[in-house]
Amino acid sequence: MNTFDILISEVGPRDGLQSVNATMGTADKLLWINALAAAGLREIEVGSFVPARLLPQMADVAEVVRHALTLPGITVMALAPNLRGAEAAFAAGVHKVTLPVSASAAHSLANVRKTREAMVEEVRAVVHLRDEQAPGKRVEVGLSTAFGCTLQGAVPEDEVIWLAAQCAAAGVDEVGLSDTTGMANPAQVRRLFTRLRAELGDKAGAAHMHNTRGLGLANCLAAYDVGVRTFDASMGGLGGCPYAPGASGNVVTEDLVFMFEAMGLRTGVDINRLLQARQPLADGLPGEPLYGMTPQAGLPKGWEQPPPLR
Amino acid sequence: MNTFDILISEVGPRDGLQSVNATMGTADKLLWINALAAAGLREIEVGSFVPARLLPQMADVAEVVRHALTLPGITVMALAPNLRGAEAAFAAGVHKVTLPVSASAAHSLANVRKTREAMVEEVRAVVHLRDEQAPGKRVEVGLSTAFGCTLQGAVPEDEVIWLAAQCAAAGVDEVGLSDTTGMANPAQVRRLFTRLRAELGDKAGAAHMHNTRGLGLANCLAAYDVGVRTFDASMGGLGGCPYAPGASGNVVTEDLVFMFEAMGLRTGVDINRLLQARQPLADGLPGEPLYGMTPQAGLPKGWEQPPPLR
Repeated sequence: MNTFDILISEVGPRDGLQSVNATMGTADKLLWINALAAAGLREIEVGSFVPARLLPQMADVAEVVRHALTLPGITVMALAPNLRGAEAAFAAGVHKVTLPVSASAAHSLANVRKTREAMVEEVRAVVHLRDEQAPGKRVEVGLSTAFGCTLQGAVPEDEVIWLAAQCAAAGVDEVGLSDTTGMANPAQVRRLFTRLRAELGDKAGAAHMHNTRGLGLANCLAAYDVGVRTFDASMGGLGGCPYAPGASGNVVTEDLVFMFEAMGLRTGVDINRLLQARQPLADGLPGEPLYGMTPQAGLPKGWEQPPPLR
Repeated sequence: MNTFDILISEVGPRDGLQSVNATMGTADKLLWINALAAAGLREIEVGSFVPARLLPQMADVAEVVRHALTLPGITVMALAPNLRGAEAAFAAGVHKVTLPVSASAAHSLANVRKTREAMVEEVRAVVHLRDEQAPGKRVEVGLSTAFGCTLQGAVPEDEVIWLAAQCAAAGVDEVGLSDTTGMANPAQVRRLFTRLRAELGDKAGAAHMHNTRGLGLANCLAAYDVGVRTFDASMGGLGGCPYAPGASGNVVTEDLVFMFEAMGLRTGVDINRLLQARQPLADGLPGEPLYGMTPQAGLPKGWEQPPPLR
């Protein structure tokens, strides 16, 4: 698949939908995911394997996974907060499980009531489970609050890299860095991803940036500059982290795709179809604000996207 | 003044105020400009020397300039569309005149009813006037639609560089590039500013970016990466270009200052005072929407800006 320059990992059906108060109906979710796939998105985080009493928006995740698996060429990813969630995710047949691990000690306790060291053990257990019961499936860790934390403030960079190395040693396939709280800046992004890549080699994973303070795309550009090629983004900028007060605003998929494609980098996404995929999202979440500057302004006059490669 | 890394040129009182329907009262303008200066902005484009029948918002520009000249440490800049405007600007005592010259042939005709070649002659006449009547004052050209045009679409990069060289040869002090229409992308920004600096040396001027498609800060970062150190921005993202349909959204000063300061680069701007300067703007333009992600989210927990250097 080296014909693409960039992999956009669409997290809206998980990160976005779990952050809004409304619950999107299952049929609407499937229509939206179909539209995302039709636009050329090749990796979609379709849901979260958490108890329905905690996140009713995700009660239908197994059904959503089952449907997404019928779409050709899509990596079906789901979030699992712990071993039990990962077990359910593998049982549902996902291609890839993503485990959030807090880089901030304070956020880890607040979010999952576990120390970071305990989370590394949980990660190790998930890898063991995968090896035993779901060989060939991928496990990734997303290090949340890697660029700062609304609870403790700054997060020492040495601790971020140490924790990433611990997770890699526990056997995961990749470790990405998440700006859960929108505190990252481009210089910090370049420093941390450069260190991550030096430490982890090809296990260095995605950049998950937020646009809380308007720096989302600049931070993605900074990450690209130091070699990152996978970027999480959410259609309409839906989502944030409900456990990090004040955090909001995933990078908008539409704007991110426009930026990279305008730079001549191939994402595989057809931007016109991507813009059309906002409709099933809007239909499924009536009244929910959808963000995005490119959707609002439209594509520039005379602007032509090279045809998608797939 | 090499103690600063970055010069933010605040264009709100000109570019912003001329783009809104309401006219801010003179007293309100002066309070706002005072607040901008108090925040540490060192260059302010305070108005435009155009006939009041065309832009009633700018009818008091001479009075605004007179007041701004009393503020210590500020470069008082004004826009002049032509020789007559420049004459009035020099007479009012501005430190610096900025002349817009369209890189797009179509935009030039639509905006000022002159060809680009005729505009270069106008620029030459302004430089001559300056040399005769206002020695020591600075003249800059901002090449509008340098990254694309809503009328003609793409603007050939060779034409942009050719026109910049013509303006430099006409004797101006600096030539900047403006993304009037929000069509720029970071790869293009790096290419064009690299060429501009190679062609013009220290006459290569500011980056004036718009956030129309969300890429404003990413484009500023890209320009910084290739050596640009002066950036136009507008408080609250006020402004655009009334003659480029669909164009909107100057880069938000507050977000741009946050990005650079968070990167450890010194702008000289005290961000808390900068955020306070939104109040006189809001007071003077009741009901006008003000943008800015950093103002909305607030500064990150525990984030400390080094004290301003001035």
